[in-house]
Amino acid sequence: MIKVGIIGAGRIGKVHITSIATRVKDAVVKSVADPFMNDETAAWAKAMGVEVVTKDYKEILADPEIAAVLICSSTDTHSPISVEAIKAGKHVFCEKPIDHDIEKIQQVIDALEGTNLKYQVGFNRRFDHNYEAVQRAVAEGKIGKPEIIKITSRDPEPPSIDYVKVSGGMFLDMTIHDFDMARFLAGCDAEEVYVQGANLVDPAIGEAGDVDTAVITMKMENGAIVVIDNSRRSAYGYDQRAEVFGSEGMVACENDSQSKAVLSNADGVTAEKPLFFFLERYMDAYGKEVSMFIDAIVNDKEAPLNVYDGLKPVLMGLAAKKSYEEHRPVKISEIM
Amino acid sequence: MIKVGIIGAGRIGKVHITSIATRVKDAVVKSVADPFMNDETAAWAKAMGVEVVTKDYKEILADPEIAAVLICSSTDTHSPISVEAIKAGKHVFCEKPIDHDIEKIQQVIDALEGTNLKYQVGFNRRFDHNYEAVQRAVAEGKIGKPEIIKITSRDPEPPSIDYVKVSGGMFLDMTIHDFDMARFLAGCDAEEVYVQGANLVDPAIGEAGDVDTAVITMKMENGAIVVIDNSRRSAYGYDQRAEVFGSEGMVACENDSQSKAVLSNADGVTAEKPLFFFLERYMDAYGKEVSMFIDAIVNDKEAPLNVYDGLKPVLMGLAAKKSYEEHRPVKISEIM
Amino acid sequence: MIKVGIIGAGRIGKVHITSIATRVKDAVVKSVADPFMNDETAAWAKAMGVEVVTKDYKEILADPEIAAVLICSSTDTHSPISVEAIKAGKHVFCEKPIDHDIEKIQQVIDALEGTNLKYQVGFNRRFDHNYEAVQRAVAEGKIGKPEIIKITSRDPEPPSIDYVKVSGGMFLDMTIHDFDMARFLAGCDAEEVYVQGANLVDPAIGEAGDVDTAVITMKMENGAIVVIDNSRRSAYGYDQRAEVFGSEGMVACENDSQSKAVLSNADGVTAEKPLFFFLERYMDAYGKEVSMFIDAIVNDKEAPLNVYDGLKPVLMGLAAKKSYEEHRPVKISEIM
Amino acid sequence: MIKVGIIGAGRIGKVHITSIATRVKDAVVKSVADPFMNDETAAWAKAMGVEVVTKDYKEILADPEIAAVLICSSTDTHSPISVEAIKAGKHVFCEKPIDHDIEKIQQVIDALEGTNLKYQVGFNRRFDHNYEAVQRAVAEGKIGKPEIIKITSRDPEPPSIDYVKVSGGMFLDMTIHDFDMARFLAGCDAEEVYVQGANLVDPAIGEAGDVDTAVITMKMENGAIVVIDNSRRSAYGYDQRAEVFGSEGMVACENDSQSKAVLSNADGVTAEKPLFFFLERYMDAYGKEVSMFIDAIVNDKEAPLNVYDGLKPVLMGLAAKKSYEEHRPVKISEIM
Repeated sequence: MIKVGIIGAGRIGKVHITSIATRVKDAVVKSVADPFMNDETAAWAKAMGVEVVTKDYKEILADPEIAAVLICSSTDTHSPISVEAIKAGKHVFCEKPIDHDIEKIQQVIDALEGTNLKYQVGFNRRFDHNYEAVQRAVAEGKIGKPEIIKITSRDPEPPSIDYVKVSGGMFLDMTIHDFDMARFLAGCDAEEVYVQGANLVDPAIGEAGDVDTAVITMKMENGAIVVIDNSRRSAYGYDQRAEVFGSEGMVACENDSQSKAVLSNADGVTAEKPLFFFLERYMDAYGKEVSMFIDAIVNDKEAPLNVYDGLKPVLMGLAAKKSYEEHRPVKISEIM
Repeated sequence: MIKVGIIGAGRIGKVHITSIATRVKDAVVKSVADPFMNDETAAWAKAMGVEVVTKDYKEILADPEIAAVLICSSTDTHSPISVEAIKAGKHVFCEKPIDHDIEKIQQVIDALEGTNLKYQVGFNRRFDHNYEAVQRAVAEGKIGKPEIIKITSRDPEPPSIDYVKVSGGMFLDMTIHDFDMARFLAGCDAEEVYVQGANLVDPAIGEAGDVDTAVITMKMENGAIVVIDNSRRSAYGYDQRAEVFGSEGMVACENDSQSKAVLSNADGVTAEKPLFFFLERYMDAYGKEVSMFIDAIVNDKEAPLNVYDGLKPVLMGLAAKKSYEEHRPVKISEIM
Repeated sequence: MIKVGIIGAGRIGKVHITSIATRVKDAVVKSVADPFMNDETAAWAKAMGVEVVTKDYKEILADPEIAAVLICSSTDTHSPISVEAIKAGKHVFCEKPIDHDIEKIQQVIDALEGTNLKYQVGFNRRFDHNYEAVQRAVAEGKIGKPEIIKITSRDPEPPSIDYVKVSGGMFLDMTIHDFDMARFLAGCDAEEVYVQGANLVDPAIGEAGDVDTAVITMKMENGAIVVIDNSRRSAYGYDQRAEVFGSEGMVACENDSQSKAVLSNADGVTAEKPLFFFLERYMDAYGKEVSMFIDAIVNDKEAPLNVYDGLKPVLMGLAAKKSYEEHRPVKISEIM
Repeated sequence: MIKVGIIGAGRIGKVHITSIATRVKDAVVKSVADPFMNDETAAWAKAMGVEVVTKDYKEILADPEIAAVLICSSTDTHSPISVEAIKAGKHVFCEKPIDHDIEKIQQVIDALEGTNLKYQVGFNRRFDHNYEAVQRAVAEGKIGKPEIIKITSRDPEPPSIDYVKVSGGMFLDMTIHDFDMARFLAGCDAEEVYVQGANLVDPAIGEAGDVDTAVITMKMENGAIVVIDNSRRSAYGYDQRAEVFGSEGMVACENDSQSKAVLSNADGVTAEKPLFFFLERYMDAYGKEVSMFIDAIVNDKEAPLNVYDGLKPVLMGLAAKKSYEEHRPVKISEIM
């Protein structure tokens, strides 16, 4: 039974506390830290069996009983806290992205050098039942050699403009999940990225210097072409699909919905909308990624995603940004 | 190139004239007869290339050039005209049902005795692409031994009360297609029928002595259980589905719709309704049944359905009627 | 926070212990009793936080701290332990069926008389996301007045012959869930039952005096016709579907599968099979029914199912048995 | 009743002869010309009611009885014969593309100047039931303002290398249909094209200087982004789908298959593959486009597609070619 500390008690921090409490046998959350910790959250954490509630994550890093930390704090703190935690000898699960700055990710890589610590990045979608099944079909050769990979990722509603301003831009904030998915499904890295982006959803997003709609085309190292389409607003809910077309067939996944009830009447044959919210769609995936992180520690296995899996999508996101700004295809090698 | 006469120029007569004109290479419609022939129909028939337009079907039977007739007149005339046509040496395609009276069907059987004439009954659904595919899967053993067969057959709207009164009742008018489908899918005859019927759609149908909603359960000779559900009114259009469950799997077919377009919005994910009208759904099947009738004549093959295939569903319908009246399971052997 | 005792630590007892531990906030399992309690189960229960592990359920009934019991022991003990528990002042959640003997259920009803105790029966399917959505559409009037209700319920594989012999027969063991579903979807009770049953799956089941395949037709009090089709063996997994057809439309639900991945290749377009096992399909529903039982106690609400909801499906099962034996439609009023 | 001449008696010429014979009331095919006319084709044409069979299309142009011609000859003859036919006072239906050379299309435009002749280009997919339904939903505002349009178009098998060499390249030969579809669904013209292309299917195609796999991204004049994905080989058949995502929802269409039968067994739940061949998928659309051409003549309406609808996709194809060669986004305005 290993003890875990959670750094950051926002929405995703709570998701991980719940998952560990209810689904992970070999771990308990001993401590949770958040600079904005309030009474309500503290009481909730206590009820979930968390022993220590603090405002200072350094308490967690100083606790020799704690073997691993989950970094769920604001994005700008991911890489410095990662480095600190590694230096304190903790295994680290870090929410995505590690950082928007490649040098800072390099510092995390450097810190890991020579340790035996696990470092897993929170690309939860790899653990989703649908994407897992698609990837498995590809990996098992059921569609032959992959040639065209299509990823649709549309949010139900745009974030606040305040968030947009600090998000690092849509490619590093939202598309980054799809960049990871591209690598997951293709089984290799990207070589080149081209973006056709637009500001169609909310003019304020454009004024904040960001896009809200984009089609991103990539050439992968194995020759496959990936196309991602993104929108910050989907009237019918959270749209998360993928399709891999190859030399011997195609595998694709549709959205999940709350139920499989279908109503037929004079207006048509109507099924339910996709689940609206990412926490509904991916709750199970969040539980699974943390279970596998704990399993990697307890049984000294490789974590399912490592620090380089955290780095690569950032490179792709920076290439996408550059492609959009310079209106031309950009090679990943131009970024590094 | 054989010449054909059409007896009855109503809706279904016109369907067959069109099919032969546009889809059947080896036949032409030479003549059409209808006691209520009007100028409009006559002009239409001429434009379709029909040479002779008459009120008297006996002209057709007397024409030595005509090798085959299609009997599309009112139900009560099916069996007597069948007998006359056979005696005149014509091959016969007869719309369903041959008759509601077993003895009259027997007269048709007797008339056929010793001739080499083809006699095909118009159970068009056997030629529908969906039912054909289901039946083929069963016949090829893809589901093992059939055990439970479910047939859904719901009309978009009830017929007029005038029609209800002369229809012979829902079991002989509407369910008769499903009785044929049961034989087609099971690959054998029925032994016993039980009806749970109701008058739920329109009280006037009940006052006319008929049901408009029913679930009919049958035991087939091969041990399979068939269940048919019928309604005279389906708010979402013509509902025509079948499912065959067997020892090694299940095969089922869904409805056809005008297009495969699907709209996703805040209200849900909406596909089109089934095709509303039987002529839309089965137009292709009507063409195919007539092609096969002509092919059977030209190439002296067995017609895909014979006079006994016309008789059996009538027996099943009479058993259903008796079951409903006596509120008990009725054996087919009680009818004959 | 109320304390709960679990009587019976078999498969379903463990499901409920897990649900309460991980999903039910207002309750803890204090004790578990099973006459065949072994070390492994005892250790598992301790790890789940259960304080008392015993072979004697009477210890649970005698514990004044325990407010409610879940009866998960063998079927023949359901009604006597129910009566004892009620007399000991405990709220009762009883697995289905309460008993196969109407008089024994009557004793439970009598015991409840004058108490304020909750008595909930474990018809878990009412809490399944798909059936809930179908029922909600019916209850909200989206399909108008229900007219034809179809319930498909096919097990992935037959039980052992030893089990078949003590099961009370397929109608009381398996179809009983579907009888409850018929009441749930129709919103009323059954009047009459007719069974067409067969022994098609395994001759040994027939030799044990039972059927393994059946189509059950029922007339409901509101005039709707229900048809249930059952098989003890479905090659493609656990098949659990329902369809309600009414005056203004139809609502239906399909099976759940592990993922929504679909493979298209030269062989066709292949989706996953339904979930194979009832614990996979209904795990969420098991959690929800127990949550609602605890909620009913804590907040003094009506339990979602009461003792009469336990009685009615047994009456329907006994009527089905009689219908099969006497080969005729049987009224529910003949049973009482 | 107008008389029509068919120039070119290959596969598509025969399709049009059949459509006019069986589906178009107001026209007859009087003549058919093909430089490689053989006895078999001549006999077939006679049997279809064609009066004049010739090797020289100039005979058709010289026939004053003929009001309209359908140009179904080899691509390089489309524009010169168009000009000749217009000068001979004939309405023209021309198979796609008019020409690969913009100047030659301009000559057709010049020839039409000042005449009242109809000139329709054979982009048949606009008349397909699925694409029509998608376009109608967009045009009716059901998805709000279009933002992302996805078109999948994959052939079942690559053409012969001999054909590839004279085809003008995949963008002008195959993608040209998708360029037309982009304009049809977006309701406006393209501004800019970017191609990510590859040679993945057959090295011989690459050696012939062409691609066989591509993702084409376009910016449309209304701000929408279009993405087309193409492959010359799809293991599961002809894959023809479209999806339009907009501010208020999404409309998409799936492939057609031969039947809606679905087999469930131990291997999964398997539906039929898409129709394999374009003539199966689009037979109805071919009939409809010709009906509308004749209707435009007879009733002096606008033809559903005019000469500019023939020009624009060629511009898009040339821009795509340039984008692939220069590996950068290319504006349509660079081509003209």
